[in-house]
Amino acid sequence: MPAESVPLPAGFSAAGLHCGVKSDPAKRDLALFVSDRPATAAGVFTQNVVVGAPVQVSRERVPTDAARAVVINSGCSNVSTGERGLADARAMTAAVAAALACDEEAVTVCSTGVIGQFLNMNAIRSGLPQVVAGLGDAPDDLRAAAEGMRTTDTFPKLSTRTVGPVRVSGAGKGAAMIAPNMATMLAVVLTDAALAPADADRLLRAAVDRSFNRISVDGHQSTSDTVLLLANGAAGPCDEHAFAAALNDVCEELATDIIRDAEGATHFVTVDVTGLPSDEAATTIARSVADSPLVKTAIHGADPNWGRIISAAGYAGVPFDPGRFDLDVNGHAVCRGGVPTDFDEAIVSEAIRSNRDCTLTLNFHDGPGACRFWTCDLTAEYVRLNADYTT
Amino acid sequence: MPAESVPLPAGFSAAGLHCGVKSDPAKRDLALFVSDRPATAAGVFTQNVVVGAPVQVSRERVPTDAARAVVINSGCSNVSTGERGLADARAMTAAVAAALACDEEAVTVCSTGVIGQFLNMNAIRSGLPQVVAGLGDAPDDLRAAAEGMRTTDTFPKLSTRTVGPVRVSGAGKGAAMIAPNMATMLAVVLTDAALAPADADRLLRAAVDRSFNRISVDGHQSTSDTVLLLANGAAGPCDEHAFAAALNDVCEELATDIIRDAEGATHFVTVDVTGLPSDEAATTIARSVADSPLVKTAIHGADPNWGRIISAAGYAGVPFDPGRFDLDVNGHAVCRGGVPTDFDEAIVSEAIRSNRDCTLTLNFHDGPGACRFWTCDLTAEYVRLNADYTT
Repeated sequence: MPAESVPLPAGFSAAGLHCGVKSDPAKRDLALFVSDRPATAAGVFTQNVVVGAPVQVSRERVPTDAARAVVINSGCSNVSTGERGLADARAMTAAVAAALACDEEAVTVCSTGVIGQFLNMNAIRSGLPQVVAGLGDAPDDLRAAAEGMRTTDTFPKLSTRTVGPVRVSGAGKGAAMIAPNMATMLAVVLTDAALAPADADRLLRAAVDRSFNRISVDGHQSTSDTVLLLANGAAGPCDEHAFAAALNDVCEELATDIIRDAEGATHFVTVDVTGLPSDEAATTIARSVADSPLVKTAIHGADPNWGRIISAAGYAGVPFDPGRFDLDVNGHAVCRGGVPTDFDEAIVSEAIRSNRDCTLTLNFHDGPGACRFWTCDLTAEYVRLNADYTT
Repeated sequence: MPAESVPLPAGFSAAGLHCGVKSDPAKRDLALFVSDRPATAAGVFTQNVVVGAPVQVSRERVPTDAARAVVINSGCSNVSTGERGLADARAMTAAVAAALACDEEAVTVCSTGVIGQFLNMNAIRSGLPQVVAGLGDAPDDLRAAAEGMRTTDTFPKLSTRTVGPVRVSGAGKGAAMIAPNMATMLAVVLTDAALAPADADRLLRAAVDRSFNRISVDGHQSTSDTVLLLANGAAGPCDEHAFAAALNDVCEELATDIIRDAEGATHFVTVDVTGLPSDEAATTIARSVADSPLVKTAIHGADPNWGRIISAAGYAGVPFDPGRFDLDVNGHAVCRGGVPTDFDEAIVSEAIRSNRDCTLTLNFHDGPGACRFWTCDLTAEYVRLNADYTT
């Protein structure tokens, strides 16, 4: 579905506008998502030891059954800003709460952008009444809110699914850990399903584990990464299994959109690992392959360099029988039973070069554990973008 | 000391020549290191699950008190070559043992170069008698052996120290995990000190832990990484503390030479971490910073982007107080107590740009644990070299 036509679930409204955190007046930098009634909310936050003020404020406020809104600014991450940063983050939620006539604790906050700078609270304070006044429940309103979350993203990231009368819609941002100083992965998922806080928390963690925790652009985990789920019950209860599938789909689409938008990337890479004793073992190996600069440069060069892939699997810290694994690149068998096939390098190379999507399939033939992981190639353009940003 | 003048310890000889594994006749591809009497030997090998045939053969033969020789070829790593590869690796040691009239078990073997190809044993078999005949104990002989280990290295890596009458000399190779398919870090350290096998093993592991295990070009651990120590006792016993210091120095010089020779790099980066509860915690954080593509691209761009450094520290998995750490870049204080100083970005940027050596100093003020780690910057040239190799 085009981003322009992703609908909001019942009972939600959204808005996004430019308030002045970003210098370019054409760029939105403030977003608001509101439920017209108390909603269940859950959140998953960065595990980084260094976290921004908004993360510190928001993670104390979920899970809850009384959430009303999420307010987000882009252009400044409010990280490494000490007590003043915490006060600013709380002030943002207080202003929204006042406008909505709700408790301050019912509002969560995210910020993304430059770190080590204080928020321009004059801009935020002038923008907040306008963004509240601009709230609407049309797809364009959701899209405007998604725009307000963007930093270096080249497109807004939106996804939606339905389960009977229930709708699940999400907005996300992220395009690698690059500009201004450090970007971030943020996502807000809204649903009109009725969920208890403990269930929302459990289902969101499971969905994040299979989506945002299975992507890697450069292995960096930011100080602000946040995924929030709001469930306001406007459409009533929903079969949990079906809801979980829809939530997983929305999270997966938002997560893979980040990889599709990764800076400088020319390939979207799926790493499929099967045949390990556990999903955890499969995930560890998949992450090691996906994070490898040598694998990522080989794909950029359309080089069917299977030795780099198996060596990255081999140092992941998970034992396996090196005489048993199979490897396929874009469906071409390049390794069977741990030794290379007599594949035609030119054909496999052309299969990589001529397709933006690249799939690495590893089977270790030692159990039911599996993981699908997504990454991108590593290009000179990535280096240029990341080396030349601030100087 | 120039590589041309690094002497062999007493009782050792060496040689290096071209036998035909590499196609270019100007490039040496075979090296031999011999002790004239049984020597204590210890080895440290890659932890990769996938290992080459030479690693499988050699790691069964150390520690020992009866070693006589190390034979090494470059140009083919003999990895992923199955039973035939194992037979070839054993045949190399058998041929050397026959020429030296010693037990086959007294010879260890290393190979480095392309993986997934069988060794050209005709070339090896014709070369081995010549390399034995060419053995000599002059610095030029050691240098020739170091040349025989090279793959993409732009210079041979040699280091030496003395402790009274005892000499410790090492030869190494490595220049990132790049060409032909996957390069490797190899080092052979020779000493005329007398050492028991258990002591040699313990001292080598400690030295490797502080040198080769503290460098990172791209985080890859190859399928062939090997460090061997031979101690023949020709100079008699030696104070263990003094010997350990010399061994550490030689390993550190060989290890940092690999970073100085890293493909495409324009900066040699030292990451100094102090103030953690343990050395292990400090090492984990230092490695996380050193492996970060964002830190490495920032240094390439002379960008004093301290947020990337602290965020890489923050996701290392080691707890610390984010309000207590200090960070210096090339001696300039950029962060104190977890918040940025008002440093002049232009001055710090110029300090990075105009010096090949760059030092990141992190102090967490929470204990005596420390680690010095070495890495290089990430450049577009690295991507070009690694993306464009085989295609």
